[in-house]
Amino acid sequence: MDALVNNFQPLLLAQLKSGDYVGFTFFIGSMAMAAATVFFFFQFSQVKGKWKDSMLVSGLITFIAAVHYFYMRDFWATNQASPTEFRYIDWILTVPLMCVEFYLILRAFGAKVGLLWKMIFYSVVMLVAGYLGETVFRDASPLWGFISTIGYAGILYEVWMGSAKRLSNNSNDPILQKGFNALAWFVFAGWAIYPIGYMTIETGWLAGLIPAESMDIIYNIGDAVNKIGFGLVIYSLAVSKSAQGAEQHVEAGAGKATTNA
Amino acid sequence: MDALVNNFQPLLLAQLKSGDYVGFTFFIGSMAMAAATVFFFFQFSQVKGKWKDSMLVSGLITFIAAVHYFYMRDFWATNQASPTEFRYIDWILTVPLMCVEFYLILRAFGAKVGLLWKMIFYSVVMLVAGYLGETVFRDASPLWGFISTIGYAGILYEVWMGSAKRLSNNSNDPILQKGFNALAWFVFAGWAIYPIGYMTIETGWLAGLIPAESMDIIYNIGDAVNKIGFGLVIYSLAVSKSAQGAEQHVEAGAGKATTNA
Amino acid sequence: MDALVNNFQPLLLAQLKSGDYVGFTFFIGSMAMAAATVFFFFQFSQVKGKWKDSMLVSGLITFIAAVHYFYMRDFWATNQASPTEFRYIDWILTVPLMCVEFYLILRAFGAKVGLLWKMIFYSVVMLVAGYLGETVFRDASPLWGFISTIGYAGILYEVWMGSAKRLSNNSNDPILQKGFNALAWFVFAGWAIYPIGYMTIETGWLAGLIPAESMDIIYNIGDAVNKIGFGLVIYSLAVSKSAQGAEQHVEAGAGKATTNA
Amino acid sequence: MDALVNNFQPLLLAQLKSGDYVGFTFFIGSMAMAAATVFFFFQFSQVKGKWKDSMLVSGLITFIAAVHYFYMRDFWATNQASPTEFRYIDWILTVPLMCVEFYLILRAFGAKVGLLWKMIFYSVVMLVAGYLGETVFRDASPLWGFISTIGYAGILYEVWMGSAKRLSNNSNDPILQKGFNALAWFVFAGWAIYPIGYMTIETGWLAGLIPAESMDIIYNIGDAVNKIGFGLVIYSLAVSKSAQGAEQHVEAGAGKATTNA
Amino acid sequence: MDALVNNFQPLLLAQLKSGDYVGFTFFIGSMAMAAATVFFFFQFSQVKGKWKDSMLVSGLITFIAAVHYFYMRDFWATNQASPTEFRYIDWILTVPLMCVEFYLILRAFGAKVGLLWKMIFYSVVMLVAGYLGETVFRDASPLWGFISTIGYAGILYEVWMGSAKRLSNNSNDPILQKGFNALAWFVFAGWAIYPIGYMTIETGWLAGLIPAESMDIIYNIGDAVNKIGFGLVIYSLAVSKSAQGAEQHVEAGAGKATTNA
Repeated sequence: MDALVNNFQPLLLAQLKSGDYVGFTFFIGSMAMAAATVFFFFQFSQVKGKWKDSMLVSGLITFIAAVHYFYMRDFWATNQASPTEFRYIDWILTVPLMCVEFYLILRAFGAKVGLLWKMIFYSVVMLVAGYLGETVFRDASPLWGFISTIGYAGILYEVWMGSAKRLSNNSNDPILQKGFNALAWFVFAGWAIYPIGYMTIETGWLAGLIPAESMDIIYNIGDAVNKIGFGLVIYSLAVSKSAQGAEQHVEAGAGKATTNA
Repeated sequence: MDALVNNFQPLLLAQLKSGDYVGFTFFIGSMAMAAATVFFFFQFSQVKGKWKDSMLVSGLITFIAAVHYFYMRDFWATNQASPTEFRYIDWILTVPLMCVEFYLILRAFGAKVGLLWKMIFYSVVMLVAGYLGETVFRDASPLWGFISTIGYAGILYEVWMGSAKRLSNNSNDPILQKGFNALAWFVFAGWAIYPIGYMTIETGWLAGLIPAESMDIIYNIGDAVNKIGFGLVIYSLAVSKSAQGAEQHVEAGAGKATTNA
Repeated sequence: MDALVNNFQPLLLAQLKSGDYVGFTFFIGSMAMAAATVFFFFQFSQVKGKWKDSMLVSGLITFIAAVHYFYMRDFWATNQASPTEFRYIDWILTVPLMCVEFYLILRAFGAKVGLLWKMIFYSVVMLVAGYLGETVFRDASPLWGFISTIGYAGILYEVWMGSAKRLSNNSNDPILQKGFNALAWFVFAGWAIYPIGYMTIETGWLAGLIPAESMDIIYNIGDAVNKIGFGLVIYSLAVSKSAQGAEQHVEAGAGKATTNA
Repeated sequence: MDALVNNFQPLLLAQLKSGDYVGFTFFIGSMAMAAATVFFFFQFSQVKGKWKDSMLVSGLITFIAAVHYFYMRDFWATNQASPTEFRYIDWILTVPLMCVEFYLILRAFGAKVGLLWKMIFYSVVMLVAGYLGETVFRDASPLWGFISTIGYAGILYEVWMGSAKRLSNNSNDPILQKGFNALAWFVFAGWAIYPIGYMTIETGWLAGLIPAESMDIIYNIGDAVNKIGFGLVIYSLAVSKSAQGAEQHVEAGAGKATTNA
Repeated sequence: MDALVNNFQPLLLAQLKSGDYVGFTFFIGSMAMAAATVFFFFQFSQVKGKWKDSMLVSGLITFIAAVHYFYMRDFWATNQASPTEFRYIDWILTVPLMCVEFYLILRAFGAKVGLLWKMIFYSVVMLVAGYLGETVFRDASPLWGFISTIGYAGILYEVWMGSAKRLSNNSNDPILQKGFNALAWFVFAGWAIYPIGYMTIETGWLAGLIPAESMDIIYNIGDAVNKIGFGLVIYSLAVSKSAQGAEQHVEAGAGKATTNA
């Protein structure tokens, strides 16, 4: 009968128990992602021109995450186990979309689409290796963690030293540069949260040092910071640039007026 | 078989029994929050400029509350017990958003983002202490209630005497000042409803004086007043300022016309 | 096993049986309310200025009703009993919103917010007494019906003789007056449908004369007339006034053109 | 246990079996109606002026149908029986809305609202008699089918010979006339599909000639043609008239320019 | 009891097991289609004129696919079997819509609606034969695969050599020609993925060479490429043409300015 009950647990009715702090972060995450999605989609109508694409992609990232957090929190509440499959499905869709966000900014500096594909390739390496290390080849988790880190290092190189960084350096738009730098810090410091979670599994380097159930808390904090925070930086950038555009418009209009006079 | 029935209760089908007044307030609350959300999101398209952000945040507060009230009312209908976890998840997301509402108004007076973080910090102290006092350390509920009150007092200080109040005093915009004062009264009188609910638990100061099941009724009334009422004050402020902006526009246009002449 | 089946009936799958005419009106009502909501919300974008608020409130009324009709029809289909609790939760939210509709029209004639509160007070008396008479104090249903009628009479007085009527009489806007009169007739003739339903319960004056199960049919017809019909009158008023506004705009523009010349 | 399984079949999970062609048309119908609804609602923002109302009504027709097709397909998949009740609830709401569509077009030719009520009356006769013939008085299905046909004939008379036809003939707008004629053909040829379905029931004139289960396939094809096709004709009409309006606008603007010169 | 469990699996709660790579592609597909739908519907508001229709149809294609992928992934997770019926219902709706996309582009070159019907006829032949070969006449799958291929060849002929190709060749709009060519390649290379999947069934030519369960992976990849990729090509085309339109507008304005001067 137990199996029956487990199989029937209706979606969204999984109960959270007092003191289940992992479950807490899943529930808060699901709602925070949903609210962030509504926020970004409404702001789509406020920002100007190509920045609408950036807001739309920010909203898609939190939208995809919101759906998966609803699944993950129910999986956790039902099984008290890590929803590893849902997590990686979320990431395989949202991490490439974060690379798209970088590209949408760098395009203004003349970035080619090849840069986008390079970053997506690195992110796929990072995620596929991570998944294999957490599931199929769990015994060899450090090895797969190492391969995953190569993918991560590739992205880090691009945004801190490679062509993406050079494109930003060569521009003369301080607002865009400031936004690019903020996102680069997210990749450096924010994404570094995940390896810590990864290393808490029983074959990981932090096994025993940190309780195993903290992996999901660490991942959940990482997602909130990197998805909502990342989106808010882009939102703030889009608002600044939209206001600037409006001023230039006014100036251009003033110029025209002068010419007419 | 009973356990099976409980576990299967399909979402949104929990039945309300005649005379279950606590359940009544949960059901009315869920629908009132949903309707308020629709109202605020539609008004987003009506108000002008930065006031759209205020309407959006008002709508997000009631949206998050609506979702949690749907869970809470089903939890109550199924278990006839307080949905403490859902309540605190709701509050941990919506109370900081109310602080954001204050900040969005005070920004016009030159408020720094530091003020926002200070208020969010106070609100987190207030909520985390409250949760621990109601659940994990229920025996020591007065102590945790005291710590929670410190957080509450911090917010009260800010909006009635501290830097937020000074910013409002130094401005010369009577509409904004009136709106700020109305919100300050919500924090003083409206938020004071919650400690009364808190003190009805069996280790609280009002235990025995007020029936224990009235805690949820008190909390539900508090939420309706503070979330919907708070949002309506901001809506009214946004409409006044949007109309004022339109007039200034007309005046500016008139001025320009004069200049041209 | 029967109890189990009843408890599990999944939402929206309750089957309607051939010849269950009460169930028929519940199903038709649920869908008609949903379609009316979509209609009013789309028209929000078409009408002008403050009439948008009127369309929004019309849509909120049918939105709240639609949600409750979905519950009520499933409750009926499952239990073949009156969903009294859901009905009163619907009314306690929608009847005050109908009072708001009156106020939104009368505001243009200089109505004070006090008139709104007075009408809301009357409607709460009417509904709370009605609920108590149908449930807790069913034996004394005529007495509570009488108290309820006092609330109803108060609203009738306002819109047919009191300050609301005087405000309408003193205005010189024939379109608004015609709309106000139409709504006043809804309150007089349309709302009078409900007492008939109320009097069919076994302690009511019509008990035995009309079959008891007709109460829900009468209530359902009343709701369709009063919520959708009421909204359509306001829609028609809003369209007329929006068109008038557009003409005045054109005239004003023509005036300006003349001045310029 | 079988009864339990039937009662629990969760909505939207009813499985379609290979070779169940009736079920196929239900599933395709449900999705086609949903997609058509999205299409018409998006086009609402594209067409101009009063044509928005026509697109909105087209969308409401397919919206109501989509919801009922989702119920009907699950009813069929679960019971392999005709979902007669759901079908008639759909029709009692959507057929009058089709009459509204005629009225919205004829209004431009000076149609009075009385014409709308006359057509709605005919459609109610047609549907109520049809329902009684298929369910309560199944033994006398030919008689009730005859009464239903009188209602149908009334509508046919209006759009092919009566006042509706005359209004169209007297206008001098070839685009509207072409649209009106296309819709009249839908009523003549498209609606004639339904009597064929009706006559396949075991007491019908086609009983034995056509397999009884083909009734639902015939009805489903009829609905797709008459609801989506009808809406597409109106869409095409609305696009033509909106473009014409834009041209007249340009011409009017040109005229004004000439005057100014 | 097993049958009961299978029948009750609540929608959207089907669990994905570690290493179920077929299930993985179903889950990723469902979410990717949903996100693509949101993307195309938001872009509807950005592109200009008739290109809005193209974005809307792209969104409808992924919308229909998203709904079916949610069903298919749950069918797979529950039964570990190919959801053949859902797949063909999806295709019978979305493949004709892809033909509509071709038509919407070619219309600008003077395409007649007859071309659209010809392509829809070919696609129906392709799909109906394919369905029969996979289900009812599985023993004769190569024969039905051959008939299906005739339909496919018809479409290929149209877009690579027939009237569609000629229309594109005779135009002098390089942006449209480039877009048309990209879509033609999708039909040639992208749609060729499906026959490979089809030939993996146990009576197919690739049976034994490729594991049978890879059919669904192949179909899922094909759908992602052909639905999302196809839509992105049209999006990119719509953005280019909308920008061009804006420039022509500016030039036209400039021309007018010159005339005025």
